[in-house]
Amino acid sequence: MGVVIPLEEKSPERLIDPLTKLVAPDMARVNETILSRTGSDVQMIPEVANHLISSGGKRLRPILTLATAGLAGYVGDGHVKLAASVEFMHTATLLHDDVVDGSDMRRGKPAARTVWGNEASVLVGDFLLGQAFKMMVEVGSLPCLDVLATAAAVIAEGEVMQLTAAKNTETTEDAYLAVIRAKTAALFAAACEVGPILARRGKAEIEACRGYGMNLGVAFQLIDDALDYGGSSAKLGKNVGDDFREGKITLPVVLAFRRGAPTEREFWKRTLERGETEERDLETAMAIMKKHRALEDTVERARHYAKMARDSLELFPASAWKHALLSAVEFAVQRAY
Amino acid sequence: MGVVIPLEEKSPERLIDPLTKLVAPDMARVNETILSRTGSDVQMIPEVANHLISSGGKRLRPILTLATAGLAGYVGDGHVKLAASVEFMHTATLLHDDVVDGSDMRRGKPAARTVWGNEASVLVGDFLLGQAFKMMVEVGSLPCLDVLATAAAVIAEGEVMQLTAAKNTETTEDAYLAVIRAKTAALFAAACEVGPILARRGKAEIEACRGYGMNLGVAFQLIDDALDYGGSSAKLGKNVGDDFREGKITLPVVLAFRRGAPTEREFWKRTLERGETEERDLETAMAIMKKHRALEDTVERARHYAKMARDSLELFPASAWKHALLSAVEFAVQRAY
Repeated sequence: MGVVIPLEEKSPERLIDPLTKLVAPDMARVNETILSRTGSDVQMIPEVANHLISSGGKRLRPILTLATAGLAGYVGDGHVKLAASVEFMHTATLLHDDVVDGSDMRRGKPAARTVWGNEASVLVGDFLLGQAFKMMVEVGSLPCLDVLATAAAVIAEGEVMQLTAAKNTETTEDAYLAVIRAKTAALFAAACEVGPILARRGKAEIEACRGYGMNLGVAFQLIDDALDYGGSSAKLGKNVGDDFREGKITLPVVLAFRRGAPTEREFWKRTLERGETEERDLETAMAIMKKHRALEDTVERARHYAKMARDSLELFPASAWKHALLSAVEFAVQRAY
Repeated sequence: MGVVIPLEEKSPERLIDPLTKLVAPDMARVNETILSRTGSDVQMIPEVANHLISSGGKRLRPILTLATAGLAGYVGDGHVKLAASVEFMHTATLLHDDVVDGSDMRRGKPAARTVWGNEASVLVGDFLLGQAFKMMVEVGSLPCLDVLATAAAVIAEGEVMQLTAAKNTETTEDAYLAVIRAKTAALFAAACEVGPILARRGKAEIEACRGYGMNLGVAFQLIDDALDYGGSSAKLGKNVGDDFREGKITLPVVLAFRRGAPTEREFWKRTLERGETEERDLETAMAIMKKHRALEDTVERARHYAKMARDSLELFPASAWKHALLSAVEFAVQRAY
């Protein structure tokens, strides 16, 4: 079924290459658009925006908008501005997230809020959101506007949901999934849905691309969750332990807590709910996760959503776009190893 | 020229009555829409949103959307959702403003951020902005979406501008006007512009309504600035001194600083720039303002923009809507006395 990708032979980075190559010409235009649309006479706006935008994110979301437009055979220019809009929405969310989480670092650099303050992060986020909607209006597709405006509301709803559920180690897997569907996957889904809408494809293809994005988004977030504890091999590496230090409840914690002995549950309550941390707590956390296979199973869960993402695209005939999008799913998962 | 309104005989509140009466049936539908669109399974969202929305704001902005739609002879339903969108945009701005300013109170009640935290204020603001755009999309007018999306970006730009200029007592009157045009007046202008756009009126009428809103917004903000030091009579009353305590540079300060002696300028620098305040500083501030007629002249400046707002509407023939909108301008100014 579908295109078989020889996983074992490829490093994760190589799995995303087919996609980045295909979108490269369009992506250059997206990057130009991003640069010109962060411009403002108010100097602080491009400073703050570009601090984050040029900080080496993969720009996976705009890439997905371009690629699903390609998959759907779109001929036109609208996908460039919509891809830039999607990246602006994502950047706005990150700026506001840092304020909400009180994070000091983002992508290995000081968070914007630690350089320019919470105020600037809130307001530049608002500015980017406004610019995102302006670009969508310029594209002029009301159905695309509907998809992206709905995503904006759902993302914020998911963040509030997480705020309410935060610091609760007894969060169920289903409740956690509801949060990441809203917080992360909704934008992936919207990013993938607008391509076929622009191309005026039928409901089935639009739904297929949306399903691809939604499931890819869930898989992507779960792998991020596992990576934050070192991935399936639980190795200490860059950024390992960020979620733990911030007391975030993620799927590895949800699984380890459910499967844990009473003393282990008390450990999670102390460290994540009450925030009373001691030296070597992170190592203890990783040992408990190893014992209960929490990371392997988080990756396993991600694999499930990755499969759903791949199957979503099955109704499209074979093409370079389809191959690249399927390979991107493997990229999302293989990062965990 | 135009309709003459017997100012002296009316209290400020009575001057807004013609407008609130005319829009009452539509406004009931706007209020229903606001209520239903703050709904969410995430309980904190309606709690935070309604804390602010039901806190007794005058809902002047949505009223203006309804009234300019009426003035332009609009027949249809779109203005109700656009009016609700405008109020959501305004509410989102207030929620984010409180976080940016670190304000503890809003409209005489604890600010949402003091009850639910900065996190909730940021995120519920984002949710309301998303819902606002969803409603605009439902109305389906791309030109209206353009006007409101542009306003969203301009408002945020104005806030960042203020952040950069904040605490600078040497701010010029022109620089201050640029800030309030963006921060406050842009939404008034957009609120008034979408009515005639929906009604498919020509460029002249659309520009006229926009000009009315823009100038009314500037006048409104200047009167607010004066009221924060007690209005033209400089009486201590409710909320007097909020701007002073928060170190905000407003037009009364700009005028008093420019006109002041060196010792007075040092007073403004100490209290507003360096935030070193002592007991009775507010009384001193008000005395300096009185000496330099800073409040009277702020109100005088507001009168100038009020006149421009009135003249903007002159190309419309006499009607109950026009009379009510002109009277609302007087309301905005008369509050200062």
